[in-house]
Amino acid sequence: MARIAVTDGMAEDAVLLLQQAGHEVVLGTIDAADLANGALGDFDAIIVRSATKLPADVIAVSGDRLSVIARAGVGVDNIDIQAAATAGIPVVNAPRASTQSVVELTIGHLLSSIRHIPRADRGLRDGKWEKKIMKGTELSEKNLGLIGFGRIAQGVGAVAQALGMTVHTYDPYLPPKVAKAQNTTLHKNVETLFSNCTHISIHCNLNDETHHLVNAERLALMPGRSNDGIACGNHIVNCARGGIIDEVALLEALEQGHVASAALDVFETEPVPADALLLQHEHFHGTPHIGAATMEAQARVGRDIAHAVMAVLDGGTSETTVNAHLMS
Amino acid sequence: MARIAVTDGMAEDAVLLLQQAGHEVVLGTIDAADLANGALGDFDAIIVRSATKLPADVIAVSGDRLSVIARAGVGVDNIDIQAAATAGIPVVNAPRASTQSVVELTIGHLLSSIRHIPRADRGLRDGKWEKKIMKGTELSEKNLGLIGFGRIAQGVGAVAQALGMTVHTYDPYLPPKVAKAQNTTLHKNVETLFSNCTHISIHCNLNDETHHLVNAERLALMPGRSNDGIACGNHIVNCARGGIIDEVALLEALEQGHVASAALDVFETEPVPADALLLQHEHFHGTPHIGAATMEAQARVGRDIAHAVMAVLDGGTSETTVNAHLMS
Repeated sequence: MARIAVTDGMAEDAVLLLQQAGHEVVLGTIDAADLANGALGDFDAIIVRSATKLPADVIAVSGDRLSVIARAGVGVDNIDIQAAATAGIPVVNAPRASTQSVVELTIGHLLSSIRHIPRADRGLRDGKWEKKIMKGTELSEKNLGLIGFGRIAQGVGAVAQALGMTVHTYDPYLPPKVAKAQNTTLHKNVETLFSNCTHISIHCNLNDETHHLVNAERLALMPGRSNDGIACGNHIVNCARGGIIDEVALLEALEQGHVASAALDVFETEPVPADALLLQHEHFHGTPHIGAATMEAQARVGRDIAHAVMAVLDGGTSETTVNAHLMS
Repeated sequence: MARIAVTDGMAEDAVLLLQQAGHEVVLGTIDAADLANGALGDFDAIIVRSATKLPADVIAVSGDRLSVIARAGVGVDNIDIQAAATAGIPVVNAPRASTQSVVELTIGHLLSSIRHIPRADRGLRDGKWEKKIMKGTELSEKNLGLIGFGRIAQGVGAVAQALGMTVHTYDPYLPPKVAKAQNTTLHKNVETLFSNCTHISIHCNLNDETHHLVNAERLALMPGRSNDGIACGNHIVNCARGGIIDEVALLEALEQGHVASAALDVFETEPVPADALLLQHEHFHGTPHIGAATMEAQARVGRDIAHAVMAVLDGGTSETTVNAHLMS
């Protein structure tokens, strides 16, 4: 049977699933130098998360045996999917497994921002009872702008609507009927999304088009006041990918007070440099890229990716192949 | 026209509303000693929040002029409503104004707990990137137990259902059809609520019956594992009133790991003593009684209470009179 490298860890049940199907699972990190020297030549499949990097030169020296690359998660920015396609290797991922976890973290960050939850907790731990300066605002009746309206954003939108928000969306790749079916207002350009929304959450991929999509000019368009006249300020959440927000512009907008809060799970550089000024701002709070870091998501990711890998090893295809369109 | 004391502050628009109706509004704290010496004798109405205490002896010396006591908020534990009834003084409140704000804070606390938001932010501020120890769980597919199922709990239940939770309720004063209409399971005794739910949120009043309703024995009943087999641990949220939870028992359960997280907006003693051990626990987070502390709730509270006070001053009644049943 097949020999499968699992370099960034995987849920135990998923490892068992592969082993029970008769496959050999080799757990453990493989050095970048070993990868560059063709270490993947000994494997039929490799399953990575985000730590292992598979650029074109690593894929080029992987030899003929490697027949599937799997990303136990969603984003494939650590894998050169074009190079894999050229080498005839499908890259599969597990796009649905973490949806609910990211939806919940996004709503948690939004509510934590507008009610000052981490900031208020800091005060309590410091022995202060700062009731007055912790006055917040409600999400209800506010406009939430979602940049990207795929699975995760649709889930966020549904919960936001249950909280009484009006949902606006921007997604140039989405059939307009999807936005309409979810009772959201689809914007043709991202500028009008910013000028209509006091709350913005990011749910798109990172690519050349979305790099620094959230910049000083667009932040300046945000209205700071809701339709019902409440001076709720402007609020930014990013649980998608670092680099979509220009962090220098965000910190400046926080310092000027134009942005009232920023909640980030992802950063331009990860781990964030410990001396980053953003981390210490009173109206910032963050989490260390844990959108998919739940027991449930990890169990589903493992199960989904094991099935996708076995489908390819058995000579079939996986419906979650991300480079099918690049293969001849 | 009438002379109205506003001792704990009120939204500006509401003060204007009273003044435009021709009433004199006297803003400012009145000392407990002055209250005990009959300071209220100079007023037709008094509007308080929670800081001003109006026990029986204060009401007894208030004289004949005082004709309405108003609580700009919900809980009237700071007012002796029986003594007021005996003196023929209706006590009015604004029970609906803060509902949405408390609903949102409750959901925010629940999500902050299960995704470690304040704890993760502490780590980032300390220059750490603690991705692994911040693994969380989802709310989806978990059983949420609501103690008390009035307006706020019903709002919490609806959002929790949008997040995929199954809602259980305990409310001995609720017509069972209300719980059924909201697709929740109504428990006849609070013990089965605890034994069925990994997540519990409190939404009842504080009185002799509910004092320390959440105690060591009942916490011990919580299952720690959801129906889908996830070891999510047990989670407690209280945005209602301090004193309903036995904080000594809660801290012990946190220390033993039987309770995985506790999120409190209210405490047995407020302000919480700065040296309270609970505040420093890794899996505790809290806010300083800010459930109703939003711009929106304060605007609504002010408007609602101004209308209630004017209704009584005009010789009518307010539908939000909390001691009508005690008056002869």
